[in-house]
Amino acid sequence: MNFLEERIQRDGIVKEGNVLKVDTFLNHQMDIGLFRQMGEEWKRRFAGTPINKILTIEASGIGIACIASEYFDVPVVFAKKSKSVNLDGGMYVAEVESFTHKCKNQVIVSKKFLGPEDRVLIIDDFLANGYALQGMISIVSQAGATVAGIGIAIEKGFQPGGRTIRNLGYHLESLAIVEDMDAETGKIWFQEQNENAG
Amino acid sequence: MNFLEERIQRDGIVKEGNVLKVDTFLNHQMDIGLFRQMGEEWKRRFAGTPINKILTIEASGIGIACIASEYFDVPVVFAKKSKSVNLDGGMYVAEVESFTHKCKNQVIVSKKFLGPEDRVLIIDDFLANGYALQGMISIVSQAGATVAGIGIAIEKGFQPGGRTIRNLGYHLESLAIVEDMDAETGKIWFQEQNENAG
Repeated sequence: MNFLEERIQRDGIVKEGNVLKVDTFLNHQMDIGLFRQMGEEWKRRFAGTPINKILTIEASGIGIACIASEYFDVPVVFAKKSKSVNLDGGMYVAEVESFTHKCKNQVIVSKKFLGPEDRVLIIDDFLANGYALQGMISIVSQAGATVAGIGIAIEKGFQPGGRTIRNLGYHLESLAIVEDMDAETGKIWFQEQNENAG
Repeated sequence: MNFLEERIQRDGIVKEGNVLKVDTFLNHQMDIGLFRQMGEEWKRRFAGTPINKILTIEASGIGIACIASEYFDVPVVFAKKSKSVNLDGGMYVAEVESFTHKCKNQVIVSKKFLGPEDRVLIIDDFLANGYALQGMISIVSQAGATVAGIGIAIEKGFQPGGRTIRNLGYHLESLAIVEDMDAETGKIWFQEQNENAG
């Protein structure tokens, strides 16, 4: 197991309905030392890939993306969730379904911050159905920019998001892929990764 | 002028209605090098103050708080905005008025992450009316924890939030205090700070 899998195993809590709570270190309280390890690991996995911008989405992607950016030395842009967009033409907009809230949100990025010259690393905390990620990819496409890579902390391998994204040919690096989990026993199984994948 | 005032002067855009847009470097696209300077400066201003946790609020406080935490070496907790709280008793809750959206939101922090032993540095990007900050202070109080300090990037000195907080005796350090601004000319005046305040 790598450092993140070990941490999930130790501090993650499995709840009914395929919920994995990692709020003690990832998305409510944030362990910045752990985020540094994640940034370092993505830097290793995307070595040699030109990247000049990181894109994430509010709220829980932001902290991870900011710390990761210290290893890539690039600015971070976060997509904003918006109910009532002042569509003044200055925004890229994508519709994102929310699994938790059973509704659709618009996410927006100002056109000032993404253009055809950009090679974007997309960072987020979770990948399950992949709706948020698809929205971010759509925004990068609207900008004529390139998705240089996608870095995810925790992928739920038993949900279809990751497979779809890999099928589409994107370079997706999830640091921990949960293969299965059991709310009764609290046990979590991870998909095996290459030894050299940290 | 310090580094942040210079940056605001250069890249900030003044709009009608006392709006200061700093989305090119602070709260949409984020300049992580600038955030590091901010973290360093808060560390200097809160030197000798015991701090074991940083509290911020989603979304635009998170990036700043995470980078700042690298100078304090403490975990970061972010207060979540919530419309429909599952009030299971495990949350501290505060009501926060939103100036932008003219409505009230609940902000929540899990009780797991704040307790009487905590000495909290509150970090946020903006301080104007101070509603978000008051909500965070309320949450720290509910936890029986101590507000060890408050670090704000940009304070609108012509709005009452900062004065109230200082009158209440809190140690508030705003890195840039805008005294006045003019949408017509784009000019921004800053409140003078001590020479040794960076």
